[in-house]
Amino acid sequence: MLNKSLLGEKYVISDMQEAPALGVGMVGYGFIGKVHTFAHRSLPLFYDPLPARTRLVGVCTATEASGQKARQQAGYEFATTDYRELVDRDDIHLIHCCTPNDAHHALLKDALRAGKHIYCDKPLTRTLAEAEEIAALARQTKAVHRMTFNYRFVPATLRAKELVEEGFLGTVYQFRAAYLHAGYVDPNRPISWRLQMDRSGGGALMDLGVHIFDLMRHLLGEFAAVNAQLETFITRRPDPRTGGTSPVDVDDVAIVQTRTAGGAVGTIEATRLATGTQDELRFEIHGSRGAIGFNLMEPNWLTVYDNTVPEAPLGGERGPQHIECVTRYPKPYALGATKNTIGWPQFHVHCLQDFVASVASGNPGGPSFEDGLAAQRFVDACQRSAASNAWVDLPAATGE
Amino acid sequence: MLNKSLLGEKYVISDMQEAPALGVGMVGYGFIGKVHTFAHRSLPLFYDPLPARTRLVGVCTATEASGQKARQQAGYEFATTDYRELVDRDDIHLIHCCTPNDAHHALLKDALRAGKHIYCDKPLTRTLAEAEEIAALARQTKAVHRMTFNYRFVPATLRAKELVEEGFLGTVYQFRAAYLHAGYVDPNRPISWRLQMDRSGGGALMDLGVHIFDLMRHLLGEFAAVNAQLETFITRRPDPRTGGTSPVDVDDVAIVQTRTAGGAVGTIEATRLATGTQDELRFEIHGSRGAIGFNLMEPNWLTVYDNTVPEAPLGGERGPQHIECVTRYPKPYALGATKNTIGWPQFHVHCLQDFVASVASGNPGGPSFEDGLAAQRFVDACQRSAASNAWVDLPAATGE
Amino acid sequence: MLNKSLLGEKYVISDMQEAPALGVGMVGYGFIGKVHTFAHRSLPLFYDPLPARTRLVGVCTATEASGQKARQQAGYEFATTDYRELVDRDDIHLIHCCTPNDAHHALLKDALRAGKHIYCDKPLTRTLAEAEEIAALARQTKAVHRMTFNYRFVPATLRAKELVEEGFLGTVYQFRAAYLHAGYVDPNRPISWRLQMDRSGGGALMDLGVHIFDLMRHLLGEFAAVNAQLETFITRRPDPRTGGTSPVDVDDVAIVQTRTAGGAVGTIEATRLATGTQDELRFEIHGSRGAIGFNLMEPNWLTVYDNTVPEAPLGGERGPQHIECVTRYPKPYALGATKNTIGWPQFHVHCLQDFVASVASGNPGGPSFEDGLAAQRFVDACQRSAASNAWVDLPAATGE
Amino acid sequence: MLNKSLLGEKYVISDMQEAPALGVGMVGYGFIGKVHTFAHRSLPLFYDPLPARTRLVGVCTATEASGQKARQQAGYEFATTDYRELVDRDDIHLIHCCTPNDAHHALLKDALRAGKHIYCDKPLTRTLAEAEEIAALARQTKAVHRMTFNYRFVPATLRAKELVEEGFLGTVYQFRAAYLHAGYVDPNRPISWRLQMDRSGGGALMDLGVHIFDLMRHLLGEFAAVNAQLETFITRRPDPRTGGTSPVDVDDVAIVQTRTAGGAVGTIEATRLATGTQDELRFEIHGSRGAIGFNLMEPNWLTVYDNTVPEAPLGGERGPQHIECVTRYPKPYALGATKNTIGWPQFHVHCLQDFVASVASGNPGGPSFEDGLAAQRFVDACQRSAASNAWVDLPAATGE
Repeated sequence: MLNKSLLGEKYVISDMQEAPALGVGMVGYGFIGKVHTFAHRSLPLFYDPLPARTRLVGVCTATEASGQKARQQAGYEFATTDYRELVDRDDIHLIHCCTPNDAHHALLKDALRAGKHIYCDKPLTRTLAEAEEIAALARQTKAVHRMTFNYRFVPATLRAKELVEEGFLGTVYQFRAAYLHAGYVDPNRPISWRLQMDRSGGGALMDLGVHIFDLMRHLLGEFAAVNAQLETFITRRPDPRTGGTSPVDVDDVAIVQTRTAGGAVGTIEATRLATGTQDELRFEIHGSRGAIGFNLMEPNWLTVYDNTVPEAPLGGERGPQHIECVTRYPKPYALGATKNTIGWPQFHVHCLQDFVASVASGNPGGPSFEDGLAAQRFVDACQRSAASNAWVDLPAATGE
Repeated sequence: MLNKSLLGEKYVISDMQEAPALGVGMVGYGFIGKVHTFAHRSLPLFYDPLPARTRLVGVCTATEASGQKARQQAGYEFATTDYRELVDRDDIHLIHCCTPNDAHHALLKDALRAGKHIYCDKPLTRTLAEAEEIAALARQTKAVHRMTFNYRFVPATLRAKELVEEGFLGTVYQFRAAYLHAGYVDPNRPISWRLQMDRSGGGALMDLGVHIFDLMRHLLGEFAAVNAQLETFITRRPDPRTGGTSPVDVDDVAIVQTRTAGGAVGTIEATRLATGTQDELRFEIHGSRGAIGFNLMEPNWLTVYDNTVPEAPLGGERGPQHIECVTRYPKPYALGATKNTIGWPQFHVHCLQDFVASVASGNPGGPSFEDGLAAQRFVDACQRSAASNAWVDLPAATGE
Repeated sequence: MLNKSLLGEKYVISDMQEAPALGVGMVGYGFIGKVHTFAHRSLPLFYDPLPARTRLVGVCTATEASGQKARQQAGYEFATTDYRELVDRDDIHLIHCCTPNDAHHALLKDALRAGKHIYCDKPLTRTLAEAEEIAALARQTKAVHRMTFNYRFVPATLRAKELVEEGFLGTVYQFRAAYLHAGYVDPNRPISWRLQMDRSGGGALMDLGVHIFDLMRHLLGEFAAVNAQLETFITRRPDPRTGGTSPVDVDDVAIVQTRTAGGAVGTIEATRLATGTQDELRFEIHGSRGAIGFNLMEPNWLTVYDNTVPEAPLGGERGPQHIECVTRYPKPYALGATKNTIGWPQFHVHCLQDFVASVASGNPGGPSFEDGLAAQRFVDACQRSAASNAWVDLPAATGE
Repeated sequence: MLNKSLLGEKYVISDMQEAPALGVGMVGYGFIGKVHTFAHRSLPLFYDPLPARTRLVGVCTATEASGQKARQQAGYEFATTDYRELVDRDDIHLIHCCTPNDAHHALLKDALRAGKHIYCDKPLTRTLAEAEEIAALARQTKAVHRMTFNYRFVPATLRAKELVEEGFLGTVYQFRAAYLHAGYVDPNRPISWRLQMDRSGGGALMDLGVHIFDLMRHLLGEFAAVNAQLETFITRRPDPRTGGTSPVDVDDVAIVQTRTAGGAVGTIEATRLATGTQDELRFEIHGSRGAIGFNLMEPNWLTVYDNTVPEAPLGGERGPQHIECVTRYPKPYALGATKNTIGWPQFHVHCLQDFVASVASGNPGGPSFEDGLAAQRFVDACQRSAASNAWVDLPAATGE
C-alpha cells in the first residue's frame, strides 16, 4: 500500500513566502552526495524566482563520524546511519539516492512506498530486474522520480536539444558518442565496488555509458538495437583487504554499435582506459540539414554546422561554428549578468533546480525513472550482445 | 584613532569546533555581491578542514526591497541601507566591498578604522589619490585587507605561478596579455556609471585592465614603465534618464606597451569592443627556458612549452603542451575526487577561501590592498601616458 | 611468362649523374593523376640527394583531348588512349595506376607481366578476387609494387609510427579511427562510378575506409576480426545520362568494430555523409604507457600523451601535448630550412619519393600490394559481416 | 635610359599555344630561391587555363657549385655567378630577387633599367633611402614589379580580404597582429647577416614585421602613426669566422602600437624570441559589424564572427565560426576538386601565379614595389620611434 497522502501535488507552492521549505533527506554523503548538497545550498543564489526553498533536514551515512561531518559541513539538522529514519519522516519530502549501486534498490523501494519525491543518482539500480521493479512501482505514484542525468543540463546540451527540436539537423544519418575516462589505466589502482559486478552491475558501461546513452537518447529518440564489445584488459587488481589481488569482472571498455528507431546509426563508447583523457564526454551528430558536436572538456561551447545556409555572406566552404553557451541557462536563472565560463559542479545545480521546479509545480518533466530504466535496458542489452557476439534489439520504451 | 582591539589575531581559530563563526557584512548585493555570497555558502562543502566557519550576518543594499531579497535568497540575518550598521557591529568581522567604484573610498575608510577584515572587489578605489589614502590607512592596521583578484585563483593560473617560481620560464623576454570583452559593441547599450569617469575612474582599463595587470604583475613581478593608448570609439550613448544621449568619457579600448622591472617587454590590453569575444582574459609569456599561456575561455587548461627538455622521447619539433588543470586546487580543497571541469564562479569560492584562511591564520598572504594600489598606479600612469603620448615610469612599489 | 629482365635491381642508381632517369608512364590523368604528376615535378626541389631522376615519358587518358592537355600542362613526351603503349615501352620504368577502380585489374596484370615498377592509387582492385590474383602475380616479380597510402607519409604519422616502434604506447588497449567526408550529403549530387558497386567495388568503405584501415594497420599491426554496419541513406541519385535517377548500391556510411591480433579493440569508420566535415581523417590510440592522436584537418600536429613521465616539472594532472610536425621529413628532405606548415599535396610528394627511393635502391619498403591486398580483405570481410550481421575473422596476412 | 622595348605589354599572351614562354632569371638559390623555383614547376599543374608558360632559363648563385646544383635540381638552362648575365638577356623576362637584403638594391636597379618584370622577395631593400630610389625608378617603367607578400595568397586571407571589401567588419575598432618565431631563442645560434644591421637593415621587424604589416595594411588600409619598442635580448652570438662572439645590432623583438588612417588602433608585433612558437603569423580584427581572425599554424581556417546575424536559428550567445578555406583558390585554380588541406609552399605557388597572370595580362595588380616601399616606411618609422620613445607619423602613401 502506497502512502498516497504524500504525493507531489501537495507540495505545489503557490506563494513561496508562505510555503514551507521542502525537506531534504540525503542518503549517501560521498563525493556525489556532497555535490548534491552544494547544489541545494547554491539554488537560492542562482534562481529568481526560486521554484521552492529547500531545507537540509537529514543525512544518512555509513558511519556516525561521516554523519557528523555532514552536519558540520552542510548544516543538516540530523544524521543517521539508517536511511529509514529519513524515509519515515513527514518533514522530509525529497530523498536523494547517492549510495553505491547495490544499495539503490532497497532505498528506492522504501522511498517510493513512502511517496517521496526522489532524486536518484545514476544508474537507477544494479540490474535490469531491479530497475523494472522500481519503475513499475514508480508508475503507481505521482511523486517526482528523477534521475540525475546532469549532462542534459549543460548550457550547450540544452541548446543542442533546442536545435534538435527545431529540426536543425534534418534527418539524422549518423553520430558518434563517447564518454572517455582514464581513471583505471594505472593497474595498481585497487579493486573497489565499481569493479565488481555483484555490487556495480557493470563497469565503464554502467558507470559512464548510461550518461552518454541517456544524452544521445535525449537528443535522438529511442534506440532500436545494439551490438556491443565489452572488454576487460586489467583482470586483477590489488585488494587492500587481502594484501593480494582480486578479479575484475566488469568491462574496462565498452564499444557499442547502435541503430535508432529513427534509422540513424552510430557508436556509443564508454571507457576507463582512455589514456590521456580526463572527463571527456563528447558527441558528434550529422544530419541532412546540419550537424552538432560537444565535448565536456570544453563545456562552454557547442559546435554547430548549418548545412542550409547559403554560402554568402561567409561564403566559400564554410566550417563548423562554435556557439558560445556560457551560462546560457534559461530563466529563472538569475546570476548570469555576465558571460562567465561554467564548469561541472554548476551543471548539478541546474539539474537540481529542474527537479525542485518539477516538485514545486507538480509537472514531472526532466529525466525520470523511465529514462533510468531505458538506460538500464541499454546496459542489459549490451551485456547480452557482447556475451553472444550478436545484435540485440531494444524493446520499445512503452513505459509499461 | 583605529580600533586596534578588533585586529586580526583575535580571530585566529585554533579549534574550529569551538571557534565562533566569522560574521560577514556584505556591502552591495548586485551581481558581484551575489557571487561573494554564493562563495560563502559553498565554502564548507569545498574545503576540509575548513579554515573557519562564516556566518552571513548583515547585508547593505541600496533599497529595502533588495535587502529583503538578499535575506530571503541568502539567509542574511538582517538588511540595511546604511553600511555603517555593518561596520559598527562587533559580530561582523569581514566586510565585503561590492559597491560601485565611487562608493569604495568612504566604506573602506570606515571599515579600516573599525579594524575590520576587508574583502574588496576591484578596483580598490576610483582614483589614485583615494587609493593612496586607503593603502596608507591599511598599513596602520593588522587586519587582512584583500583584493578580489580572483584570476589568481584559477587552477591553471595557480599552476602558472608555481611554474614561474620554479624557474620554469628562465629569463622572461616578452609577453602579451589581454582582457577582451564585447559587452559595449552595441551602441544602443545605455550609459551607466561604468561609462562615466566621475563615478568609475576609468573604462575598460579600470574595469578589466586591473585584472589582467594584477595577474601579469603576480607572475612577472613589478612593472617599470607604461606607454598607453586609450580610445573611446562610441562617444555618446542613450541615457534612459533623459531620453536623449549622454557622453562617454572613459576608454572603450586600452592598449599598453610595458616594461617590467626585470627587463621583459609586452603588451597589456583591455577592451569592451572586442567583437566576437565573451570573457577572454588571456596571456602568453615567453622565456629563455619555457613558455606558458592561458585563455579564460578554456579555463581548465594551461599551455606550457618546456624549452629545456631534450627532444627524445617525443622528438622532432615539439609543440606546446596543454596541462589539464581541472579542479587542481591544493588541499584543503576536498571536493575534487574526480577531474571535473571548472568555471568562473568557482574561482571566487577559492579566492574567498584564501581570504578566510588568511583571517583565520593571521597570515595575510594573497592579493592585498598594496596590490590594489599597484593596479591603481598602473591605471593612473596609463591615463597620464595616453594624455601625453609618452612613456610614464611606474614608481617602485615600496609599500610606503 | 614474366619479363624478368625488367626487374628492379637494374635500376639501382649508384651515381645519379650517370644514371638514366626513370621513365614515367601515367595511366589516368584525372585529379589523382595530376597530383602524381605534380609530385614528380616537385621531387628534385624537395630532396637532396635525389634518389633518382624521373622523366615524364607517356600519359594515357580516356580521350585525345585530355592527353594533349596532359602534354601541355606537365610536359609528357607523348599521350595515348591505350595504356599498353606505356606498358610495352622499355624507356618507361614506372607505371602509375590512376584509373577508376574497375580498370585497375587489367592494367596491373599487364604492368606486372611487363615487370614494371608500379605505383597504384588505392584501392588495389575492385574486388578481393582480383586483388588476390594481382598480389599472387606480384609475388612472382621483384619490381617495386607500391600502393599510394599517402597518409603514412604525413610528418605527424611518420612520427606516430616511430613512437609506436619505440614502444611509446605500451600495450594498446583501444582506439577510434575515422575518415569523415561530407561530399555526398547533397542528394542532388549525381550518380557516378563511385556510387555503383560494379565499378567501384564499394562506397565510403572502399573509397575512404581503405586509407584509414591501412593507417591503423600500419600503426597497430594485423587485424583479427571485424563487425561492420554498412548503410546507404540516399538510395537513388540523379542520372545525367537518363534525366531520371539511378540506384546507389554502395555504402554511404561504414562503421566497423574491430579487434587486432594484438588484442586491442576499436572502431574504424568511413563516411560520405558526415555533414560539417571536409577531409577529416583522424585517429586516437590509447595504450598502457601513452596515447597518440591525429586529425588531418590539423595536419601539422600530432597529439601525444606520455603516461610514464613523472608529474614534475609540469605537475598536477597533465594533458595531451601537441607535437609540431611541420615538414619534419627525414633526410634527404632538403627544403625544410624553416618550419613552414604543410598540406595534403606535399604528402603525395613524399609518398612518391619513398617509392622512387625504393626503386632506386632495390629495397621495396613502403606500402606494397600486400598492404593493398590486406585492405581489400578488410573491405571484403566488412561487406560479409554487414550482410550477415556477424563478426567475421580476417585471415592472417601470410603473404601467400 | 630605360629599355622600354621590354615593357610588359608585349608579353600579353592572347593565345597560349602560340605565345613564347616567359623566361625566368632566378637571382639567389637559397631556401627562398628554391621555393620560387618549385612554384614555377608547379604552376602548370595547378592552373587551367595557365596565364602564361614560364621557362627556367638562368640562375645566379654565389658559387659555381650551387649553380650546378640548381641546374640539376630544377633544370635551369644555365648558371652564373654574375646576375648581369641574367638581366642582360632578352630571353629572360622575369627576374626573381632572392638574395640577402643588402644585394637587393643593385640588382633591382639594374633589372628596372633593363625593363624586366621583377618578383622581389621581401623586404624591398635594406634601407628606406634605397627603397625610395627603387620605387621612384619603378614608377618610370610599366613592367610588373611585384613583392612576394605571399601571406596575401593564403585561401583564408584571400577570403578575409573579400569580407573586408564586402563591409563585413563595419567600422574597424581595433586589431592585434603578430608574427611569432622562436628561431633565435637558442643563444648559441651563430651570428649571420640577418643579425647585422649593415646587411639586413633590421631584425625581427624587417624580417617578419614587414609580412604582418603588409597583411594588415592590405586588410585595413593605410597606417597613420606608430609607436615602437625594439628590443635586443641576446646581444652577442658566436661568430664561426672568429671563434669568438660578435655583436647583434638588430631587434629580437618589435612591439608596435599603431593607428590607421581610418581611425582603428592595434598592435603589430614581430619577434624571433617567442619560445614555443614555430611560424605563427596571426591576426584578430574587431569591427562594429563583425570580426575575423587567422593563425598561420592553422592555415586552412579563417575565424569569423558576424555581429549582424540575428540570434536565431543558432540563438543564444553565438561564438566565432571557423570558415574552412582549404584550397579555396579562385579560378583558374584547377587542382582543387577535393577539399584537401594546404600548407606554406602552396601559398608561394599562388603568389607566383598572380604575378605571372599580371605579366601576361599587363594588369599589374597584387603587391607592388609601392607596397614594398610602404613596408619599408613602416620599418623606418618604427626604428625612429623606438630611438626617440615617441609616436612617429607615417607619410601618406601617395605613390610619389
